[in-house]
Amino acid sequence: MNKNISTFIGCDSTFEEAEIVVFGAPFDGTTSFRPGTRFAPGLMRLESYGLETYSPYLDIDLEDYYVFDGGDLELPFGNTQRVLDAIENFADEIVSAGKIPFMVGGEHLVSLPNLKAVHKRYPEVSILHFDAHADLRSDYMGEALSHATVMRRIWNVVGDDKIYQFGIRSFEKAESEFSKYHATTEKFSCETVPSVVAALKDKPVYVTIDLDILDPSVFPGTGTIEPGGITFKELLTAVHSLTGLNIVGADIVELSPHNDTSGLSTAVACKVLRELLLTILA
Amino acid sequence: MNKNISTFIGCDSTFEEAEIVVFGAPFDGTTSFRPGTRFAPGLMRLESYGLETYSPYLDIDLEDYYVFDGGDLELPFGNTQRVLDAIENFADEIVSAGKIPFMVGGEHLVSLPNLKAVHKRYPEVSILHFDAHADLRSDYMGEALSHATVMRRIWNVVGDDKIYQFGIRSFEKAESEFSKYHATTEKFSCETVPSVVAALKDKPVYVTIDLDILDPSVFPGTGTIEPGGITFKELLTAVHSLTGLNIVGADIVELSPHNDTSGLSTAVACKVLRELLLTILA
Amino acid sequence: MNKNISTFIGCDSTFEEAEIVVFGAPFDGTTSFRPGTRFAPGLMRLESYGLETYSPYLDIDLEDYYVFDGGDLELPFGNTQRVLDAIENFADEIVSAGKIPFMVGGEHLVSLPNLKAVHKRYPEVSILHFDAHADLRSDYMGEALSHATVMRRIWNVVGDDKIYQFGIRSFEKAESEFSKYHATTEKFSCETVPSVVAALKDKPVYVTIDLDILDPSVFPGTGTIEPGGITFKELLTAVHSLTGLNIVGADIVELSPHNDTSGLSTAVACKVLRELLLTILA
Amino acid sequence: MNKNISTFIGCDSTFEEAEIVVFGAPFDGTTSFRPGTRFAPGLMRLESYGLETYSPYLDIDLEDYYVFDGGDLELPFGNTQRVLDAIENFADEIVSAGKIPFMVGGEHLVSLPNLKAVHKRYPEVSILHFDAHADLRSDYMGEALSHATVMRRIWNVVGDDKIYQFGIRSFEKAESEFSKYHATTEKFSCETVPSVVAALKDKPVYVTIDLDILDPSVFPGTGTIEPGGITFKELLTAVHSLTGLNIVGADIVELSPHNDTSGLSTAVACKVLRELLLTILA
Amino acid sequence: MNKNISTFIGCDSTFEEAEIVVFGAPFDGTTSFRPGTRFAPGLMRLESYGLETYSPYLDIDLEDYYVFDGGDLELPFGNTQRVLDAIENFADEIVSAGKIPFMVGGEHLVSLPNLKAVHKRYPEVSILHFDAHADLRSDYMGEALSHATVMRRIWNVVGDDKIYQFGIRSFEKAESEFSKYHATTEKFSCETVPSVVAALKDKPVYVTIDLDILDPSVFPGTGTIEPGGITFKELLTAVHSLTGLNIVGADIVELSPHNDTSGLSTAVACKVLRELLLTILA
Amino acid sequence: MNKNISTFIGCDSTFEEAEIVVFGAPFDGTTSFRPGTRFAPGLMRLESYGLETYSPYLDIDLEDYYVFDGGDLELPFGNTQRVLDAIENFADEIVSAGKIPFMVGGEHLVSLPNLKAVHKRYPEVSILHFDAHADLRSDYMGEALSHATVMRRIWNVVGDDKIYQFGIRSFEKAESEFSKYHATTEKFSCETVPSVVAALKDKPVYVTIDLDILDPSVFPGTGTIEPGGITFKELLTAVHSLTGLNIVGADIVELSPHNDTSGLSTAVACKVLRELLLTILA
Repeated sequence: MNKNISTFIGCDSTFEEAEIVVFGAPFDGTTSFRPGTRFAPGLMRLESYGLETYSPYLDIDLEDYYVFDGGDLELPFGNTQRVLDAIENFADEIVSAGKIPFMVGGEHLVSLPNLKAVHKRYPEVSILHFDAHADLRSDYMGEALSHATVMRRIWNVVGDDKIYQFGIRSFEKAESEFSKYHATTEKFSCETVPSVVAALKDKPVYVTIDLDILDPSVFPGTGTIEPGGITFKELLTAVHSLTGLNIVGADIVELSPHNDTSGLSTAVACKVLRELLLTILA
Repeated sequence: MNKNISTFIGCDSTFEEAEIVVFGAPFDGTTSFRPGTRFAPGLMRLESYGLETYSPYLDIDLEDYYVFDGGDLELPFGNTQRVLDAIENFADEIVSAGKIPFMVGGEHLVSLPNLKAVHKRYPEVSILHFDAHADLRSDYMGEALSHATVMRRIWNVVGDDKIYQFGIRSFEKAESEFSKYHATTEKFSCETVPSVVAALKDKPVYVTIDLDILDPSVFPGTGTIEPGGITFKELLTAVHSLTGLNIVGADIVELSPHNDTSGLSTAVACKVLRELLLTILA
Repeated sequence: MNKNISTFIGCDSTFEEAEIVVFGAPFDGTTSFRPGTRFAPGLMRLESYGLETYSPYLDIDLEDYYVFDGGDLELPFGNTQRVLDAIENFADEIVSAGKIPFMVGGEHLVSLPNLKAVHKRYPEVSILHFDAHADLRSDYMGEALSHATVMRRIWNVVGDDKIYQFGIRSFEKAESEFSKYHATTEKFSCETVPSVVAALKDKPVYVTIDLDILDPSVFPGTGTIEPGGITFKELLTAVHSLTGLNIVGADIVELSPHNDTSGLSTAVACKVLRELLLTILA
Repeated sequence: MNKNISTFIGCDSTFEEAEIVVFGAPFDGTTSFRPGTRFAPGLMRLESYGLETYSPYLDIDLEDYYVFDGGDLELPFGNTQRVLDAIENFADEIVSAGKIPFMVGGEHLVSLPNLKAVHKRYPEVSILHFDAHADLRSDYMGEALSHATVMRRIWNVVGDDKIYQFGIRSFEKAESEFSKYHATTEKFSCETVPSVVAALKDKPVYVTIDLDILDPSVFPGTGTIEPGGITFKELLTAVHSLTGLNIVGADIVELSPHNDTSGLSTAVACKVLRELLLTILA
Repeated sequence: MNKNISTFIGCDSTFEEAEIVVFGAPFDGTTSFRPGTRFAPGLMRLESYGLETYSPYLDIDLEDYYVFDGGDLELPFGNTQRVLDAIENFADEIVSAGKIPFMVGGEHLVSLPNLKAVHKRYPEVSILHFDAHADLRSDYMGEALSHATVMRRIWNVVGDDKIYQFGIRSFEKAESEFSKYHATTEKFSCETVPSVVAALKDKPVYVTIDLDILDPSVFPGTGTIEPGGITFKELLTAVHSLTGLNIVGADIVELSPHNDTSGLSTAVACKVLRELLLTILA
Repeated sequence: MNKNISTFIGCDSTFEEAEIVVFGAPFDGTTSFRPGTRFAPGLMRLESYGLETYSPYLDIDLEDYYVFDGGDLELPFGNTQRVLDAIENFADEIVSAGKIPFMVGGEHLVSLPNLKAVHKRYPEVSILHFDAHADLRSDYMGEALSHATVMRRIWNVVGDDKIYQFGIRSFEKAESEFSKYHATTEKFSCETVPSVVAALKDKPVYVTIDLDILDPSVFPGTGTIEPGGITFKELLTAVHSLTGLNIVGADIVELSPHNDTSGLSTAVACKVLRELLLTILA
């Protein structure tokens, strides 16, 4: 008898044959409101079996592709820098093997080390950032490393003209100012995605989806609830419009599953995972 | 003093004078994800008193019509066939009395026996099927009788060109193929309802509404949560556009009330019940 | 060391310097379905710190204005009239000081005494009423003072041609008739707000927002769930279109926070509070 | 076909043949913390079918006795006195027919009118009062009629030496003083029940059980949670030790079912109902 | 990189070296009240990591023993007999390999096939049955195979004088009579466990723990809530007193995790699992 | 008008006249299972008004004593050391003013800085530690500062023979060994409290209560649920037996209120707060 393997639905290839490596980064140490995103990848694996592997949107099936699920990283509690190092080392391994690291958070700060691993191989990488929050603060209550500063830290890595933000509906005035000079920021909606995609054709792209871009009516299971987000269909449309891009790294973050006892938010996260995987693979 | 009568709001006529007979079929024995739809009709009766009997959409009042509430069937646990027989017998009785059987599930498999009772009297009956799932599998894990095969079983009864599906957003590839040849299937939305209604004018029609056609933001209380559904207003519009059809049987299924502690999903089910009843009666 | 001050975010001026005085009216004694709105203002103070003070919609910041938070009134249980008197006395004090009373309910009946305090100073005040329910019954189960009669009681105060209703999707037939002669009622949506605003330019206006105007997908935390409401974005648009009006009193009512364990409804209420405050102050 | 009858399990006799008449008093208008007890009797009817009718403690079966379920009273909202009058009138009818009125609350204030109906026929009636709270205040925030004053109001009816309290673990100092002179009060536990029962042999007795006497670990579904209560087994023992008393009226109050989503508290209330019914009937 | 292995904490040996094989039987098809036990083993694996592997009660550590986790069986929905066959086949395999099958339910009916596999090798096996319910009905609503008949079906296999029941607090009168002649039944408590253990020294024993033997204050996450159960400490004491018995098969059933959003019931199930495993292994 | 003051019930004196200063330390950055204790002090303030100020156990009233509520500290996220420094500075201020610092967590690590502030003034201070977990690890996943190491860090400060542990029911083997030589540890219960109290008469004592010492049936609202704890009455007895000790500092930690939607755990925490305050003040 074999040991009990647990994967996201349809992500059951070996590491060697895989094009994409999915893994969990169960960290929520800088969350400033309701923590709990650490439980997201574990519960998503279980709940993903409520889904089909076939996408009626794209008319393709995850079972026809090769994705490996590397499980969750074991991360310490109370030491932010050690967590980031562990993630970066793991992502380095994936990138070195010529595969795409696709991380499931955890809070948004985990995007930083995954992006850094990708950036070493693709120094010109651009960032497509879907979120309710700009995450562009220079620090948060004195801390440079925070879910609220992650895009600023990523900007420290990639520089100007590389960050494209969509759906932003919450920031400080100072972040708003910063974004005008150092990023391309669409407030409230995602209508500019197609034109950005056209402009980035053939260039390496990293996609980070903070699921709180969604309206909390469809995604209440998150740490900082911001009413006024986009609908699930709008997010799907945006994801599908990425088809054809050269996506070299990705993440989906900020599901806090216990904050939504109905299971809705976890189901949403699983479906975004499936559709983004298939969009990359198609 | 009289015994305590419990009915859906406004459904308090006698059997004899009633045009429609509402009854509950509290069965969830083939549910493949989160069971619990057996509690739907009992809780809907209690919660329906949070509604008015007057519809501002249709400008008519349920109190001006005659609907009888026959209560819930007593159904055994663990024997699917016996359950289906009990429902069919009960529905036969209603149809024989010249009344419209309007069933409240329970899971979707209960539509099969209700439809069969109707079909005996109206062999040419067409099916209007509102759902997130096509339910067209030939079997589910080896079982022919399943909530995931119910429309296939109904197709076994009514044959080609009788099943019209709306809002479908989840199926296997094989179901997708089957639907192309044996049903009329609108994916994702309900925009073709008016043209189908026009085509079916004067013909007998059975309406089955799996409430998971709704986006789970407004209906998380169901067994298999599928993000990406239609809005409540879109469903209401579809229901109201059935006005004038010769509806000879109906059901509303797949509310799993304990999966949504806020009461939202139960309220939605009650309002769909009121509006569909009034649409038939108008 | 100072005592622990607790306020809605950004509402930390002194009474003297304040333009607006926010206060809580934790009463739900006539609620006919699920009570619990008494907990709204206390929990909103805590949860409002999940928000920013800056509005990206209006591009202004609550920290640049003066709002005083007067805390919650201490109200008895089981005696409706005494509760209404206590609220009216408190609101009188605010109005006498030349400030705008902005009340957070509580159930909708609390609007009556706040409006009465405002009406004494502005006898020609008009009412902008956002709600799912018309609240125009003459009595409710024999009671004249009820959340279901509050607009009728307010009509007793202000008379014909003063009440503008938006978003109404539930009433009795009799209320529907009454509204045709004594109020201006838009059913289901808020599209007429801009034209009403234009008509009321420079006149004193009282704004009452029953948050159940929102679809319960985004606001399940309320006493009587009515599917089919407007979206959060539609409500924000309506609120923002009030800019420039001479708003002399306001309230936000019917959040029942424990009915929604995710915190979504409370977050919605806080954001509406922020945006309405800023709309008045802008 | 018959209309749908809904009763507490095993309470399906006719009024005429019944020894006991059970009815619901869904009132929570003076609740000072979390309201919601109005939903108790309706949900208990549904959930009672998770129980057996046979008691392994008493070795008798509810199906061998005659209990009538009169349903829930229709009570207005926001007018305490009218509610109390409606309950008293209904209880009068039961007492006049020579039957025992057994009320299911609702909050504790509803005990007052039920007791008054019983007292008219049995002026010498004694009260066995099981509760966490003494409920002996002269008024609560100025209100004479309150769940927190109900035993004081009952004392106004029956006078000294008639009230026996058990399990009390919360009161004001003033109540504590009052209880020393006008009631017989056992704090924290129920160990004196057998000696009180012996003393009251053959005398008419009214039993009122505020279920919050239980520790909230087993009964969190109540309006005012008071840790430190008795266990379920201790309450059962106390109830069973009432066997042989001449119980002429009874009530069970303060279940607030929505405050406990697991269904535990409702199951507890149903089992206490069954055991107290059988203890009276045995 | 290796695939993601998911096991109960401390159950990570290979099949070959294991003394005990743990596996999940996610079936709840005959549950008569709230279904949902199918989710128990999957969630217990995740939540078991909140525990230590070391038992301070027994002063031994699960990491020093060999237990294999075989994962969950894939079971069809709606066909009880096929489910039972699949379980029996799997258990046969374990028993044939000379290992102890330790099943995690699912509902109680799954004990039947596991016991049958054990019984083939140990025809004289006795049953220690911990439960709130006697489960001795001859049928339930006409069905022979049911969670409410499972001990009667096991009695069909093992005959008289083999079944020892503890903690039973709910049955029909007929079951009570049956138990007097065909089983050894302790009502309400587990005090006779030590004497039964002494009598069964050296004989093969199967242990089945329906966790609803616990009081629902500590275990609300189950399908049929029966107040009045034993405490967690009493269950632990009973489990520990099995030390030294020749346990040849075991199961733990009836956790319904979604019915308890706090995670308490799942934690209880995990701790009972650890302590029973260690008791067998010690 | 005054600003809105929010305090724990009965803690409304000024800083100057206060004997005890209560304050909140909303930190949960090293929590290894379900985080969320940061919300404890804020919600306890609101919910404490469901309690009386009078203790029927001690027959004294909090309103007759002087306790100041200093509010919650503002603590950064993601930097453990900065958090500990902020707490220590605040506690220093209280100790310097000759008052008793009484902290409400937050997770257990916050006890370290509060104890350190007390230790500077009372170098011979002993620790009474009530908990489910020994918290004596040398590190947790490589981190020296953790809720799982806090008593080891306190031992680094106070040395051998100063730490008395009660109720411990979970540790690693290594912690168990450590405790034998460096602490006085009672496993599972609190029966040795009176003898320890007798031995510490007149000596300075710091009391730390990790509320997860309680059985999770009465306290599910915590980060790491450990079945098998003491009852609420046992904890009250232990607290009351501290009467007469020279308590110079105290804390209550590990309430995670959102993990228990019924409010039970928060009510428990509030009552322990009241009884420990009164025990110190008596």
